[in-house]
Amino acid sequence: MSQIKAYSASASKARVLPTEIERRPVGTNDVQIAIEHCGVCHTDIHFVNNDWGMTHYPVVPGHEIVGRVTEVGSAVSNFQVGDRAAIGCLVDSCGLCSNCEKGLEQYCLNGFTATYNSETQDPGGFTYGGYYQSIVAKESFVLKVPDSLNGPGIAPLLCAGITTYSPLKNWKIGPESKVGVIGLGGLGHMGVKFSHALGAHTTMITSSEQKGEDARLLGADEVLLSSSVDALVQEAGSFDFLLNTIPVNHDLTPYLELLKTNGTMCVVGAVEPLSQVNAAQLIFGRRSLSGSLIGGIAETQEMLNFCGEKNILSEVEVIRMDEINDAYTRMQKNQVKYRFVLDLGSLN
Amino acid sequence: MSQIKAYSASASKARVLPTEIERRPVGTNDVQIAIEHCGVCHTDIHFVNNDWGMTHYPVVPGHEIVGRVTEVGSAVSNFQVGDRAAIGCLVDSCGLCSNCEKGLEQYCLNGFTATYNSETQDPGGFTYGGYYQSIVAKESFVLKVPDSLNGPGIAPLLCAGITTYSPLKNWKIGPESKVGVIGLGGLGHMGVKFSHALGAHTTMITSSEQKGEDARLLGADEVLLSSSVDALVQEAGSFDFLLNTIPVNHDLTPYLELLKTNGTMCVVGAVEPLSQVNAAQLIFGRRSLSGSLIGGIAETQEMLNFCGEKNILSEVEVIRMDEINDAYTRMQKNQVKYRFVLDLGSLN
Repeated sequence: MSQIKAYSASASKARVLPTEIERRPVGTNDVQIAIEHCGVCHTDIHFVNNDWGMTHYPVVPGHEIVGRVTEVGSAVSNFQVGDRAAIGCLVDSCGLCSNCEKGLEQYCLNGFTATYNSETQDPGGFTYGGYYQSIVAKESFVLKVPDSLNGPGIAPLLCAGITTYSPLKNWKIGPESKVGVIGLGGLGHMGVKFSHALGAHTTMITSSEQKGEDARLLGADEVLLSSSVDALVQEAGSFDFLLNTIPVNHDLTPYLELLKTNGTMCVVGAVEPLSQVNAAQLIFGRRSLSGSLIGGIAETQEMLNFCGEKNILSEVEVIRMDEINDAYTRMQKNQVKYRFVLDLGSLN
Repeated sequence: MSQIKAYSASASKARVLPTEIERRPVGTNDVQIAIEHCGVCHTDIHFVNNDWGMTHYPVVPGHEIVGRVTEVGSAVSNFQVGDRAAIGCLVDSCGLCSNCEKGLEQYCLNGFTATYNSETQDPGGFTYGGYYQSIVAKESFVLKVPDSLNGPGIAPLLCAGITTYSPLKNWKIGPESKVGVIGLGGLGHMGVKFSHALGAHTTMITSSEQKGEDARLLGADEVLLSSSVDALVQEAGSFDFLLNTIPVNHDLTPYLELLKTNGTMCVVGAVEPLSQVNAAQLIFGRRSLSGSLIGGIAETQEMLNFCGEKNILSEVEVIRMDEINDAYTRMQKNQVKYRFVLDLGSLN
């Protein structure tokens, strides 16, 4: 194991500080990537602050990773030194369970290996993420970046992108669909872009008139102000699918009422107990309340290819590594349009 | 309008008392049925007691109706005098909306006409249900009873039957499915029978060992005691579909954990606000919480035909009309296996 200087979080301050962590050598099936950009996800803040009580310090966050291949193992066939490459939220899974067999590594029944703060499949190892100069990962979990995509807006596709693309595909959203995207942040802005690109009639559902106007620029056909009871009543029973990106608990009632018969609201933001659900809203309309987690490796590659074809990137603000703490503060105040991306060159 | 003596409920006592109510004459497209049996549904108690604040007294409950045709209108082509016939929870709908066009009359966007306590589609009329000697309804909402089915066990198929059959069909339950039926009452016992008849591996999920044993006699392959944390943990992530027939609010957490990736729990019992739902259970497994309401007319006929082929009947206890109040009391104490059925001959 070599020692690499990187930015990670200390338990005492729950903030990003320089420290020394271990890094694995490049194995037979591994790809080493010099990281150029890494997106900053809300999950990173939760891990840095140990909000979920599962952080193993020192933690190196970051699972929206894009860079260039600098070394490949002897059995690697799909990547060469100099290729662009990307890593998302997963770097391994058991590969044997029924979900892994279906390409649903994100639901690996034996527990996937997350890109950071995770034990490796081989006992004794531990993962560190993309707030870093480089990363080593198994080839089968490394993604190709389409030639037509460039710049820091690629990185957030690896988490915010696939988290919104996967449910839209799973629920077969297309030109016949009327989709509502609830909330306009890192996830929501990608949801609007994908829903629009898939040909669906796309409505931004937000409490903020300004965010509504911003969403139109991203591809929303309409804006529904969730603060207006009249507007909600008028749109009741009209949506096939709602992508709910609100990151905290909230009242689901007004949103469930927007669904058509057989409609689904998929929660991707709030990973926590939700307010009471009125079963009558589900029963009288055969509606569903669902959830979805990122995406599998094949689907993530499909999403990147789709972005390449449709020229879809995340809207980002690039920051230096030493600006990360301020960025976290601004994210918690919802003051970013729509994702911070670390320029890892700033570590040199 | 003719006057018919029937049993209905008075507002003052919230109990079944004899009174005089109006009955419509047989119109061109109508079928008149002499009622032989009418199942007693929990919904009847809610209406009699005005639990939902929407009872219009006098109310005549009853929407699990089986009898013989005594008169048909001049335009009726599918029924003749002497035929057996049945009526479920619906006697009309708009017929024009997108749901009615798809045979989903139970989700009629303009509001279906319920078999009792409902305004008719023609203004001024009101419906009275099956605690009665006869009923008149539109031919297109009257169902045929397969020749192979006999006895009072047919009646509950019209509500308890279709309420459990419809979601099993909607979620494509078949021999590859592992189904859990939660709760063993009027709905649950039909759920077990249908799940078994559709070829699914069927587990009764109940807190009662005795009910578990009873469920085996109805076709359950296994019993899962919801009172045993160990048993629940062992079965975590193993069910494709859960049919939740519990009639009141309860903690959904232990049940959602039983679902596989992409699994669905469908609530058909509790038409009320449910305890907090943990979004993490939906997200980490792409699970769905759904609901379902009875079934459309074509599907109800399909269900009756399926019962005819598979010789499926409800398990019932036949009562006289003057035993109805005691029956309600016993139902509220969960003391019936599994449905009371009124012998309307007892009114003569």
